[in-house]
Amino acid sequence: MAINLHIPARDAIHPVSGVRIGTAAAGVRKAGRRDLTVLLLAEGATVAGVFTKNRFRAAPVQVCEAHLAAGPGIRALVINTGNANAGTGEPGLRAAQQTCNALATHLGLRAEQILPFSTGVILEPLPVDRIVQALPAAITDAADDHWFEAAHSIMTTDTQPKIHSARIVLGDTPVAVTGISKGAGMIRPNMATMLGFLATDAGLAPALLQPLVRSIADQSFNRITVDGDTSTNDSFIVIATGASGVHIESADDPRYAPLAQALTDAARDLAQKIVRDAEGATKFMTIRVEDAATTDEALRVAYAIAHSPLVKTAFYASDPNLGRILAAIGYAGIDDLDVGRIRLWLGDVLVARDGGRDPDYREEDGQRIMREAEILVRVSLGRGRIADTVYTCDFSHDYVSINADYRS
Amino acid sequence: MAINLHIPARDAIHPVSGVRIGTAAAGVRKAGRRDLTVLLLAEGATVAGVFTKNRFRAAPVQVCEAHLAAGPGIRALVINTGNANAGTGEPGLRAAQQTCNALATHLGLRAEQILPFSTGVILEPLPVDRIVQALPAAITDAADDHWFEAAHSIMTTDTQPKIHSARIVLGDTPVAVTGISKGAGMIRPNMATMLGFLATDAGLAPALLQPLVRSIADQSFNRITVDGDTSTNDSFIVIATGASGVHIESADDPRYAPLAQALTDAARDLAQKIVRDAEGATKFMTIRVEDAATTDEALRVAYAIAHSPLVKTAFYASDPNLGRILAAIGYAGIDDLDVGRIRLWLGDVLVARDGGRDPDYREEDGQRIMREAEILVRVSLGRGRIADTVYTCDFSHDYVSINADYRS
Repeated sequence: MAINLHIPARDAIHPVSGVRIGTAAAGVRKAGRRDLTVLLLAEGATVAGVFTKNRFRAAPVQVCEAHLAAGPGIRALVINTGNANAGTGEPGLRAAQQTCNALATHLGLRAEQILPFSTGVILEPLPVDRIVQALPAAITDAADDHWFEAAHSIMTTDTQPKIHSARIVLGDTPVAVTGISKGAGMIRPNMATMLGFLATDAGLAPALLQPLVRSIADQSFNRITVDGDTSTNDSFIVIATGASGVHIESADDPRYAPLAQALTDAARDLAQKIVRDAEGATKFMTIRVEDAATTDEALRVAYAIAHSPLVKTAFYASDPNLGRILAAIGYAGIDDLDVGRIRLWLGDVLVARDGGRDPDYREEDGQRIMREAEILVRVSLGRGRIADTVYTCDFSHDYVSINADYRS
Repeated sequence: MAINLHIPARDAIHPVSGVRIGTAAAGVRKAGRRDLTVLLLAEGATVAGVFTKNRFRAAPVQVCEAHLAAGPGIRALVINTGNANAGTGEPGLRAAQQTCNALATHLGLRAEQILPFSTGVILEPLPVDRIVQALPAAITDAADDHWFEAAHSIMTTDTQPKIHSARIVLGDTPVAVTGISKGAGMIRPNMATMLGFLATDAGLAPALLQPLVRSIADQSFNRITVDGDTSTNDSFIVIATGASGVHIESADDPRYAPLAQALTDAARDLAQKIVRDAEGATKFMTIRVEDAATTDEALRVAYAIAHSPLVKTAFYASDPNLGRILAAIGYAGIDDLDVGRIRLWLGDVLVARDGGRDPDYREEDGQRIMREAEILVRVSLGRGRIADTVYTCDFSHDYVSINADYRS
């Protein structure tokens, strides 16, 4: 059950000129399921990405980083679901390279022009032969209006595809911003998320795109958490094809800011969609920490609340057992925190101040907010002027069921 | 369902001379339930404690610290369950002091000679009048063989009482070491746990007892976690009455080491009992990290594994989905971790090495270990010679049920 997750109609998705997408059934984990996706990019596209900081970086993440570092000229992405190709050592690296080699041969490219991505079970060998065998079918399938199919093809425990599509006008040229993401568990991205792909047919100079991707990630995928588990495969990629005729070479170009904003909005929407479809989630929670001295301490408090199993189960139960939030703030690791200055709101209801419950707080007011599907938890630390926001979800019986049954 | 939790028979519990215990029903949260406990100490007893590092320290924790700092002479402890008196601001502090004043008056003591403890719901006012009213009944009930009743009286969501009792001979004097603990959720003690009380009728000089308590806590309560939620009320107290006639003034006394060991063993057993009876737990897991460069990094890795909802649900399902453990090791925060050097064992089965699955690992071997009720997860980091161990449990549907229903 996804929470207010908007799926655009298929014909409301704007194709991105310069990007063609094909899918095929490789049988990586389940026979017959479309589990292989290729994105074929026109010559001249600029590509940048950020990847997981997990030390067990998956083989495809290592290959992506090497290929991006090798210089410009990325022309294709290949994505399989059903197997993460992580914790697979040297054989896993060879499998990821073999996939790139095979796709490069079909397309008349060098292997370094391909970025590989995998998602699924960790610590199991990638059935690379099946992937290689299915590549021709995926290439033949490629068309510019297959974003919808790709969003489905990259799903694992997701119940809904995640798609964002917008059109903005830069100067007088219409430009598309379209992206997809996936992920429902093992979600606490650190630099990026479990597969997010965002494309525009505006062109962006490489020197602009790389820092922009990092900034976008910090406002979107790097601000969500489901279970605190940072994946081995998190990857977020932005593609700027330039096929619209718009080319932006400098941040001073008046078209840069609206494009950066559209890309950031798209990434935030795709990231939030992951939380809305998180494993077992019934509530979408926005944790906003204000009046912090630093971003680090704002995020410590926000994540302490967002990761507390006791807070998450209370939200699942719609029980305003809000002492659990105070406890989480208290153990977030701010050694000189003065709890007498903290204020806590649930939606617009002031719950706690002066180290205790607000005298005017009434349980029925808390109860009313807790029953909603989207809940704002707002904390003022009374220490400074910094604010930051993290998005998360509750913790339900279904989270346990889904993860206990994952491989069965 | 507690996991291999041994409850000694009532007549196998050794009384500690110099400690008398009484319980009564104060109706703090539920009418008729024995929810109030007093421990009355003979004159000359030495008492030391460690308390939560949560910044939202409960009112009784603040009062305990002040009374212990005021000097020796502690003569009574008073413990209520049903309400934590945490997040209660100034009124909460006054309620804790009022409890001490009332008990001191009954016993002809000063309020500073009393230590108060509370456990239960956070952010609700303590019904102090009901506690004060029930104090005479608890005092009247006091006897030296009421450890069993006290262990029951301090329970919250615990399904079983936690008691440890041993007898050792120091020189030729038999000495008792008996203790109780409670806690089942909001368990990730930081300095101590959600109420542990340990007593011996050996005597220990105050200068020996305080550092010993800290060392004991670091080998017992500070090495367990259920849900990563550090409570506002964690308190661990050791009482040395000296009523056996044994008095130890120096760590060089040959009787010191065996007594310290017996107290440490008792505390470790009481701490492990909390995990064995953790909310919803079906598996008791020992996470041992070896060959670390520092204790800090050994514990980072151990807690990353112990707190991962994905690891915990996989253990609940008896599913050797062990890539989740590698992912947790990878995000534990060791920036220069070389995953190629890591080895992972499940029980005696080598699962992973050289950055991937051991070629000889067979799923059925992992499966066999995962079905057991007590499981050892052993990780070698290949970085140094430090090892440390954390005890935890799995994550089940019942954990969600218990915490979703806690206040209903």
